[in-house]
Amino acid sequence: MNQFDLSRVVETLESLEETIISKLIDRAQFKLNPSIYQPGASGFEGESTRSLFEIRLAYQERMDAAFGRFCVPEERPFTKRLPAAKRKVVLPPTGLVIDDFNTISLVNNIRTAYLELVPRICRPGSDGHFGSSVEHDVYALQAIARRIHYGALYVAETKYRQDPAAYSSLIEEKNTEKILALLTRRQVEETITARIRNKVDKAQAGVNPVLRHCIDPAVLEDFYREYIIELTKQGEVRYLLQRRPGAVEL
Amino acid sequence: MNQFDLSRVVETLESLEETIISKLIDRAQFKLNPSIYQPGASGFEGESTRSLFEIRLAYQERMDAAFGRFCVPEERPFTKRLPAAKRKVVLPPTGLVIDDFNTISLVNNIRTAYLELVPRICRPGSDGHFGSSVEHDVYALQAIARRIHYGALYVAETKYRQDPAAYSSLIEEKNTEKILALLTRRQVEETITARIRNKVDKAQAGVNPVLRHCIDPAVLEDFYREYIIELTKQGEVRYLLQRRPGAVEL
Repeated sequence: MNQFDLSRVVETLESLEETIISKLIDRAQFKLNPSIYQPGASGFEGESTRSLFEIRLAYQERMDAAFGRFCVPEERPFTKRLPAAKRKVVLPPTGLVIDDFNTISLVNNIRTAYLELVPRICRPGSDGHFGSSVEHDVYALQAIARRIHYGALYVAETKYRQDPAAYSSLIEEKNTEKILALLTRRQVEETITARIRNKVDKAQAGVNPVLRHCIDPAVLEDFYREYIIELTKQGEVRYLLQRRPGAVEL
Repeated sequence: MNQFDLSRVVETLESLEETIISKLIDRAQFKLNPSIYQPGASGFEGESTRSLFEIRLAYQERMDAAFGRFCVPEERPFTKRLPAAKRKVVLPPTGLVIDDFNTISLVNNIRTAYLELVPRICRPGSDGHFGSSVEHDVYALQAIARRIHYGALYVAETKYRQDPAAYSSLIEEKNTEKILALLTRRQVEETITARIRNKVDKAQAGVNPVLRHCIDPAVLEDFYREYIIELTKQGEVRYLLQRRPGAVEL
């Protein structure tokens, strides 16, 4: 089994799409509830500065850290200073050629992009479901981050292995622009965004629109194009610039 | 707004179906991983007796308790001795006429039913994704429990209000059997199970079966019929037997 077979990597990315879509649809069942994003407005005991969203994210990641989530390369945390895992996580060799997975982390960009997306998929106003809203925010955010970081690591390494000479020289020059151009396949990107639109349509096809708030497939298509794909490529560039020169690990 | 309008209650129950289905499909992306359900086999620091599944459930519910999940009537915890909420949860009056929501809790039956379902939706064997499997187990279990407890509370109270005289006398007699008969609408149950089958089909229609493991719609239809609907009715009976005599709260 070769984890750097491009069709396998692409399949994994594709299989993460359903998760992102279903988590965003779940979030959109609640109104925007803007106060949950306001620093200092959480009403949470002992918390005077963070928003309810930030607190929930930190709690979730502390729990996840104990269970070993962040031992997985593509699971990069939003929270700093997390505790160590309380269980041994045995992973097959990743084959990635990088010393610290966090050097490719794009969590700050991902959080910003997500917080701009929420008002585009949720109805405005408040429905009082603050706890449920932040819960679903965190699940959606984790699904999006996993997709971006997975792509950043595995797509980059896979493409490197397809043409080590071309990438090596651009990496040596630190030629970010040309690396980005070499990584980019517009046709593939268009296939992805069209598929997203179609999947959102299908996911909502069996739904009673009186009971479930539907999201606009075009909004998710845009989000994929402008943020998920773009941030994945930024992560790929970061990976390649951090990649240990020459080495190929099996 | 009347939360005891039967069509509204039924709508809420219906809108919970998508969540249950999507969480079960998410779980089924991982193999059964039977060791995660074995007591004492968690490999979790300081845990010699519980299974990884039980530990994850307890951690999740401790976090959720802090955020106030269990202030909501239909959110009944699986874990005992949870900490109090760290935020004030303001709910509209529930109109439920019962002193302790936990008296209708069916968590033990729900957990047993769920653990019997997992081998029917997941491929056998282990894939090493133990952390992800228990994470998704917990989300699916919470979605199922919410549906059952919501139905137990709100369907029962709604039906009581439609015919207080008939229910009152059966409650006074503690005639469980006749209460159950009065609550039961076979035609409605068949509509629900047929809809579930259809929703599972539709939810998986846009999916590439090479990438995503699909679950058998008939398995979920059976699970709804045998467990979700049956346990909801058991919960309704419990609610009615615990209901404070005569009172109707607005």
